[in-house]
Amino acid sequence: MELFTYYRSSAAYRVRIALNFKGIQYDAVPINLLTGEHKEEKYQRISPQGLVPALRLDDRKIMTQSTAILEWLEESHPAPALLPDDSYQRGVVRSWANIVACDIHPIDNLRVLNYLVGELGANDEQKQAWYQHWIKLGFDVLESQIKANPYCHGDQVSMADIYLIPQVYNALRFKFDMTSYPKILSVYERCNQLDAFIQAAPENQPDAV
Amino acid sequence: MELFTYYRSSAAYRVRIALNFKGIQYDAVPINLLTGEHKEEKYQRISPQGLVPALRLDDRKIMTQSTAILEWLEESHPAPALLPDDSYQRGVVRSWANIVACDIHPIDNLRVLNYLVGELGANDEQKQAWYQHWIKLGFDVLESQIKANPYCHGDQVSMADIYLIPQVYNALRFKFDMTSYPKILSVYERCNQLDAFIQAAPENQPDAV
Repeated sequence: MELFTYYRSSAAYRVRIALNFKGIQYDAVPINLLTGEHKEEKYQRISPQGLVPALRLDDRKIMTQSTAILEWLEESHPAPALLPDDSYQRGVVRSWANIVACDIHPIDNLRVLNYLVGELGANDEQKQAWYQHWIKLGFDVLESQIKANPYCHGDQVSMADIYLIPQVYNALRFKFDMTSYPKILSVYERCNQLDAFIQAAPENQPDAV
Repeated sequence: MELFTYYRSSAAYRVRIALNFKGIQYDAVPINLLTGEHKEEKYQRISPQGLVPALRLDDRKIMTQSTAILEWLEESHPAPALLPDDSYQRGVVRSWANIVACDIHPIDNLRVLNYLVGELGANDEQKQAWYQHWIKLGFDVLESQIKANPYCHGDQVSMADIYLIPQVYNALRFKFDMTSYPKILSVYERCNQLDAFIQAAPENQPDAV
């Protein structure tokens, strides 16, 4: 498989963790979001949205959108599992993942921040306040809900950890104050001791600057 | 089951369609997002995020986040299916659903538009431009990718239709020009001939104004 990725993309980071966790070999194809490589026609043939990640399964099949890719990985490579067996608990894990996937990351990501500054003339303080507002809403709820013993959903790594860790990495990069989130931080530290997470980290990617 | 819902919420609308489509009876519990009922302590005990939808499965189990709820519905009530049998095609359908769930709706929803106006002082024109920018990016890709013969993924209703129709309803309410999207519009019109979609429409909810 080929993963079209960018080292700092949270969504690509999620898929890198899952591929590593399930022991699936892949070739990383870096797409430079800073130089606009994702907007070139060549890449638009891979991902019509011009976003990373995209996963090439074979000569004819490419999958986009990290959540679709992660569900496909879980269905096609079920062991080790990233969702619990219990039907209701699967929903709980997915709801925590969705808080990051839908209610934090899309609002706080690079293209939205660029629009705020470029089109609406937001200054640095306003941009930072925006970022902090949305991540605080999401992290407040996650901190109150996750188990953190030691992972989000208990003693097994789950989809919830796979979404949370890249978002925490991003939060720290934006100097978001994490002192109110001891459970989230403990999950972050614990996950970052695992090979699957370490090898997926931005600084360990071939395109890291 | 009890569905905590608001008639105009796109995310609640998705779940209403799916419940109807699968023939699952539920009681609607309206939560008024305009009067701030979702921010009251009573509702925060149902949904710590203070968002709709939330689905009460029984006395002890409540599920939040529409994508988690829809995946749970598909797993627990598999017929009629909302995802194809083929593993790759399931990913394709989910990727289209995710374009709406992650890349349009969270950026264009009420709480974000309220922040733009209230905190950043955006005027009506800027708010409208913001709305149109993000929906155009998403709809351009969906228009080029979906099959629309007659539904997004062919002759069966799928998750993709369940995400798309509430977003189109919202677009029309914001007077977004849909003339460049004949395939999306044809799916919209076709779905709105089905009972599951008609009964889930905002104007047919008990709390519709």
